[in-house]
Amino acid sequence: MVVTDRQIEEWLREDIGHHDVTNDVPGETTGRLVATESGISAGIEAAVAVFEYLGVDVSDAAEAGDRIEIGDVVLAAEGPARAVLRGERTAVNVAGHASGVATRTRAAVEAARAESGAVRIAATRKTTPGLRGVEKRAVAAGGGDTHRLDLSHMVMVKDNHIAEMGLEGAIEEFARKASFATKVEVEVEDPEEAKRAAEAGADIVLLDNMTPEEVREGVEAIPEGTLSEASGGITVGGVPAYAATGVDVISLGALTHSAPALDYSFRTG
Amino acid sequence: MVVTDRQIEEWLREDIGHHDVTNDVPGETTGRLVATESGISAGIEAAVAVFEYLGVDVSDAAEAGDRIEIGDVVLAAEGPARAVLRGERTAVNVAGHASGVATRTRAAVEAARAESGAVRIAATRKTTPGLRGVEKRAVAAGGGDTHRLDLSHMVMVKDNHIAEMGLEGAIEEFARKASFATKVEVEVEDPEEAKRAAEAGADIVLLDNMTPEEVREGVEAIPEGTLSEASGGITVGGVPAYAATGVDVISLGALTHSAPALDYSFRTG
Amino acid sequence: MVVTDRQIEEWLREDIGHHDVTNDVPGETTGRLVATESGISAGIEAAVAVFEYLGVDVSDAAEAGDRIEIGDVVLAAEGPARAVLRGERTAVNVAGHASGVATRTRAAVEAARAESGAVRIAATRKTTPGLRGVEKRAVAAGGGDTHRLDLSHMVMVKDNHIAEMGLEGAIEEFARKASFATKVEVEVEDPEEAKRAAEAGADIVLLDNMTPEEVREGVEAIPEGTLSEASGGITVGGVPAYAATGVDVISLGALTHSAPALDYSFRTG
Amino acid sequence: MVVTDRQIEEWLREDIGHHDVTNDVPGETTGRLVATESGISAGIEAAVAVFEYLGVDVSDAAEAGDRIEIGDVVLAAEGPARAVLRGERTAVNVAGHASGVATRTRAAVEAARAESGAVRIAATRKTTPGLRGVEKRAVAAGGGDTHRLDLSHMVMVKDNHIAEMGLEGAIEEFARKASFATKVEVEVEDPEEAKRAAEAGADIVLLDNMTPEEVREGVEAIPEGTLSEASGGITVGGVPAYAATGVDVISLGALTHSAPALDYSFRTG
Amino acid sequence: MVVTDRQIEEWLREDIGHHDVTNDVPGETTGRLVATESGISAGIEAAVAVFEYLGVDVSDAAEAGDRIEIGDVVLAAEGPARAVLRGERTAVNVAGHASGVATRTRAAVEAARAESGAVRIAATRKTTPGLRGVEKRAVAAGGGDTHRLDLSHMVMVKDNHIAEMGLEGAIEEFARKASFATKVEVEVEDPEEAKRAAEAGADIVLLDNMTPEEVREGVEAIPEGTLSEASGGITVGGVPAYAATGVDVISLGALTHSAPALDYSFRTG
Amino acid sequence: MVVTDRQIEEWLREDIGHHDVTNDVPGETTGRLVATESGISAGIEAAVAVFEYLGVDVSDAAEAGDRIEIGDVVLAAEGPARAVLRGERTAVNVAGHASGVATRTRAAVEAARAESGAVRIAATRKTTPGLRGVEKRAVAAGGGDTHRLDLSHMVMVKDNHIAEMGLEGAIEEFARKASFATKVEVEVEDPEEAKRAAEAGADIVLLDNMTPEEVREGVEAIPEGTLSEASGGITVGGVPAYAATGVDVISLGALTHSAPALDYSFRTG
Repeated sequence: MVVTDRQIEEWLREDIGHHDVTNDVPGETTGRLVATESGISAGIEAAVAVFEYLGVDVSDAAEAGDRIEIGDVVLAAEGPARAVLRGERTAVNVAGHASGVATRTRAAVEAARAESGAVRIAATRKTTPGLRGVEKRAVAAGGGDTHRLDLSHMVMVKDNHIAEMGLEGAIEEFARKASFATKVEVEVEDPEEAKRAAEAGADIVLLDNMTPEEVREGVEAIPEGTLSEASGGITVGGVPAYAATGVDVISLGALTHSAPALDYSFRTG
Repeated sequence: MVVTDRQIEEWLREDIGHHDVTNDVPGETTGRLVATESGISAGIEAAVAVFEYLGVDVSDAAEAGDRIEIGDVVLAAEGPARAVLRGERTAVNVAGHASGVATRTRAAVEAARAESGAVRIAATRKTTPGLRGVEKRAVAAGGGDTHRLDLSHMVMVKDNHIAEMGLEGAIEEFARKASFATKVEVEVEDPEEAKRAAEAGADIVLLDNMTPEEVREGVEAIPEGTLSEASGGITVGGVPAYAATGVDVISLGALTHSAPALDYSFRTG
Repeated sequence: MVVTDRQIEEWLREDIGHHDVTNDVPGETTGRLVATESGISAGIEAAVAVFEYLGVDVSDAAEAGDRIEIGDVVLAAEGPARAVLRGERTAVNVAGHASGVATRTRAAVEAARAESGAVRIAATRKTTPGLRGVEKRAVAAGGGDTHRLDLSHMVMVKDNHIAEMGLEGAIEEFARKASFATKVEVEVEDPEEAKRAAEAGADIVLLDNMTPEEVREGVEAIPEGTLSEASGGITVGGVPAYAATGVDVISLGALTHSAPALDYSFRTG
Repeated sequence: MVVTDRQIEEWLREDIGHHDVTNDVPGETTGRLVATESGISAGIEAAVAVFEYLGVDVSDAAEAGDRIEIGDVVLAAEGPARAVLRGERTAVNVAGHASGVATRTRAAVEAARAESGAVRIAATRKTTPGLRGVEKRAVAAGGGDTHRLDLSHMVMVKDNHIAEMGLEGAIEEFARKASFATKVEVEVEDPEEAKRAAEAGADIVLLDNMTPEEVREGVEAIPEGTLSEASGGITVGGVPAYAATGVDVISLGALTHSAPALDYSFRTG
Repeated sequence: MVVTDRQIEEWLREDIGHHDVTNDVPGETTGRLVATESGISAGIEAAVAVFEYLGVDVSDAAEAGDRIEIGDVVLAAEGPARAVLRGERTAVNVAGHASGVATRTRAAVEAARAESGAVRIAATRKTTPGLRGVEKRAVAAGGGDTHRLDLSHMVMVKDNHIAEMGLEGAIEEFARKASFATKVEVEVEDPEEAKRAAEAGADIVLLDNMTPEEVREGVEAIPEGTLSEASGGITVGGVPAYAATGVDVISLGALTHSAPALDYSFRTG
Repeated sequence: MVVTDRQIEEWLREDIGHHDVTNDVPGETTGRLVATESGISAGIEAAVAVFEYLGVDVSDAAEAGDRIEIGDVVLAAEGPARAVLRGERTAVNVAGHASGVATRTRAAVEAARAESGAVRIAATRKTTPGLRGVEKRAVAAGGGDTHRLDLSHMVMVKDNHIAEMGLEGAIEEFARKASFATKVEVEVEDPEEAKRAAEAGADIVLLDNMTPEEVREGVEAIPEGTLSEASGGITVGGVPAYAATGVDVISLGALTHSAPALDYSFRTG
């Protein structure tokens, strides 16, 4: 259950419409999803699910995270021509979108690695509506960290909570209300708050909208055993500077909301 | 019915999860969706629908296509804090995505206009799965042409049809099978095919994967009364060269599948 | 994807209910969908989809548009008795409904042909809620023209638009707002408006609620290259008189909203 | 909850599509659903639900079962022009379909009444897929009996059951398996079986595919306290002859699957 | 169609989430659903449907109503490890819940049988939201009577109806409004009302919230041919006392809303 | 968005059916949801959502976690009689189910507290299919810990993983594959494994299917800073013995899969 049949139906319905005459052809056909750009493979299992929903057999599917070169076949399809042709566009669209996310994630991971072997490049909740799971798994395929999957996955203590309950009060309140299975991260404004958050039991301290220099100071203030995260307007180009600060996690909304699609072509016959 | 309640439920469910404790706060609050980047507004009506589904009142919504500057408020929300906070991320995500599409479309439109007052900048079916309508309307907001909305909207005669039925045969076959309400476009490979397609009754001739020079020759071969379209790997940067060829329509997959999101921030209180 | 699994589930749920004891029988069975009335086949692929959803094998399915005689088998089913018996009623209902639409469409087409070889018999948007695609494809199976599939498929300029923007203004406005891929039809009240609409760029001129004589005058006013359509309260019996006017298209709501079902029987064992 | 929001979304989606420019008008408007044919009102509550889903206020809705004359307003709408115009076609379609069913039912009821004050005119499970509830309630609006709502509502013992378990055996088996809340009807072939079925505890005996004369004999064989039903290919024209036999129930598939729509017009402004 | 694919998707989605890494394992595996408590089997067909939705082959499924002992295998699964492991929890949950209902029902049936061979133990509409069909079929598997499946299945005349229309008036009104296929049950307060209800044509008389002694008096007041039902706060322990009254049906909400789950374990490899 | 409109539609559809005549009454009415048993309130917000979906106004809703006594009103409803009466059963069912879970959770929490002020009583993933969120929130209302919300929320290393990758290997592998936002729990068999798991970085160690004495030994083996959890067949009665071991968390499937419903009554007028 990579994607549900219901999602696939929505994707197909919006592309096919009520009476598609040009693909209403008899017989069987084959096709291959071919990379026309190099990058990192992701979303192929969703493309597979699209074809399988339509009764098309699929083989030779690339694994999530494979590096692919121009001309590589990431999926081969065989079945009724009508079904193959009607699934083609949706399959290309989902694979191209997810692979674009994975490719940009890999670029950020490699940019970070030159500076720090340990830092994690993470996504955010800034995902495309309807594709949370597809994009988070694409980030993982690219070697990134999925970060918070949804609001229930991890507690994030923000400035409005701190304003209302105090930093220590908010941490205590939410640690009590959320499960022991749930980590607690706290968004802070300066090194002093970072230290207090760690001491109050935060699992992760979020250094939000800071320069690399400010992040470095924040990281230094945080005791061993508590993770640090830098976030807020960081681009792939900015990754090395943040990676050099010793921060544990660098998160970028741009991995999911602004990655250009990877170019695939579907070739029949 | 900009988006259906069902879509909104999917968007909210994937972001909220089973037990979100940090936004489970009492009382009422207000918030504003603020642009932190300049661009073209789109998708605001979807963000409005998200808040309204949650029982939040909305006012001051920007119109699709408005030019927005940093600091502009594109939507004001008021209602139960719990609902406002839970809708915020999804509202930002859909507005940011759609406005990114509109902004890139406007850039392409302006790039074209410098060369030709008449050329249309169009999207393709290369949209993000689940967001066909949102993205097509964002293209329109940016001043672009939505092009084919789905497979049933317009007949597209492609090389596989021509190989099987001949160019004139395929046009005749599909013109008969599709409604009189449906236009017929034909993908051609050279000026000679372009001419034949127009003479056989094509409403539009698609000059696919050609250089500007080849497009110019194709356009010249097409008689008055038949539209010409250039497509295939054209970037925003490449638009002026194609616009100068006299082609009627330039279409770009990148308007929808690779536009970076426009940056919005949601500010409560 | 003729119909979605989701539609099929709805159809089956409404017919089966929570605890159907009479069809809860063990073993395998076979069955045949047999015509007990002659007519034109349509909707058989939807009946096939119903059985396949239930895990029943189907063979010998009639093609959409086949002329069928009493006693003809349009579908053979084989599988668990429980599944065959539970799919039977829904399969009969959808096939009977769609074939009824196709049969009436064919009757109208034949009535028209006696007068004019070129006129198209078309459906309208007056379809049964939930069955737009099934009915439009049934019209095509009957030899009719599907006409506008949905509001986004073709622009229809109506009297309220003309009142507000003027005839030429409305055509210009909507031609600009809609895609180049979209045709523009204009509803007119007299020959003079018909002529103006054609000159202003309408692809089709709709002569609404007119007598055959008025239609003939409208048709004469419309220049070569613009299609004409007669619509409004036309019955199958009235088709010949309209066909004789030289109009290009005659559309009838009654093809879809008032066609009696074609009678099928499902015979097991 | 006459119809669910989900059904309404499906109805609207299939009619609107991805980018409807002609109804994208600003401001508020009013409209009235007006009968252009006389008949029996039904489905108006579904039309109301369509408009309410779109945020349109509705008033003056006719009651199900009202007799309506040409020019009668069965519903008045007021709200955003965009919403009113987009709901119009779907509202007309569902009201016209349901009212057509009610009108034909009323005709059958009146045809029966001339012969027998007691006989019930009933529908069957031969309904349009997706509209079981709408059509059954329309039958009730027309003064008819809804009959079996779904397979779980009443046990129907058919020839295949009798062949396998014997008539008395099948009645006993299903009376045991189904709830005490469920009636048992038995399909019989002759007066002798009718008598045996009644004696074995059938609540209703179905005299299937019989002439009025055969029905009369069947009815005479059935003891007081057991209901009799005639079914199978009976048309509205045939109702009086069956009503005269003394049978308790006459059921007609044609009430739901072949009733022509009642003509409504939606007038704005 | 025991449960719909849509239900199964909901069940799986709520348990899997966006990125489950621990079950993302390669290869094939097998597993068995094993009883770790003795009881009555039910819901196994729903567990089968869960695995089949995920593409897992299933064999050796227990029949609904089978008595099972500790260690009994009620289902064997074989397929991709990823799919088997992801379906496991949902399969156990639905089988355990339904089998718990069946087991408790069987206990009540056996408690009743010691006193009366004829009395029926019935469920109510007090079911778990979303599981009406699963629970009703589990009650049947346990040897119980499903009772009213939904509000449309049987007419229930309650005190508010009697207050408004009088007892006889309400029975007459609803018998007329509902189909001849629908039974009528009447809730009464004392033996005198019970007698009146039966005489007015009630199929069943409901003796609500009465002691066994009161039920006995009610039963005595009801003439032959009309069924009697005792309901209201009856526990399994209380069944024998009610069974001894001669009442025809004893219904318990606790069969469905308070039955403890039967314990199953899923063992892989 | 406590529950989605879609869930509510499913709940209402399964209870109402196609033609409910007894609740089809005119006018307005009021009603109150009244506790007829004392316990802990939960699920009231879902009952509110049911009524609001039907257009009924709600007031005086009890808060999740409130202690309620016999006769307490937990919700007052006012609106069209038709809507109030059709929502009543579903509202009672969901509130009764959730409150039953909360009440049993509170009992377990209080049983634990007598022995240990710090121990957390937690639920499991053994929830009723379709009600994961409702039940988890009911556990929280009862003062319990929701534990793992879904498979993606927390990594659980189980024996099959350890068999394949070794204990340390599995922890390392999943800590790398899952996000830094995700905790890692490890299921162990003895104190030595417990110690190794903690040292390898487990956030929580699960002592599965152990006696209290074994749990005590396990707890002693686990260093400060790592949580311990006891699970496997623990009943509410068994809680004190486990609480006395010093374990941090005691989890019980019986909180969700076997809690009897709390009794509510809905009183109209």
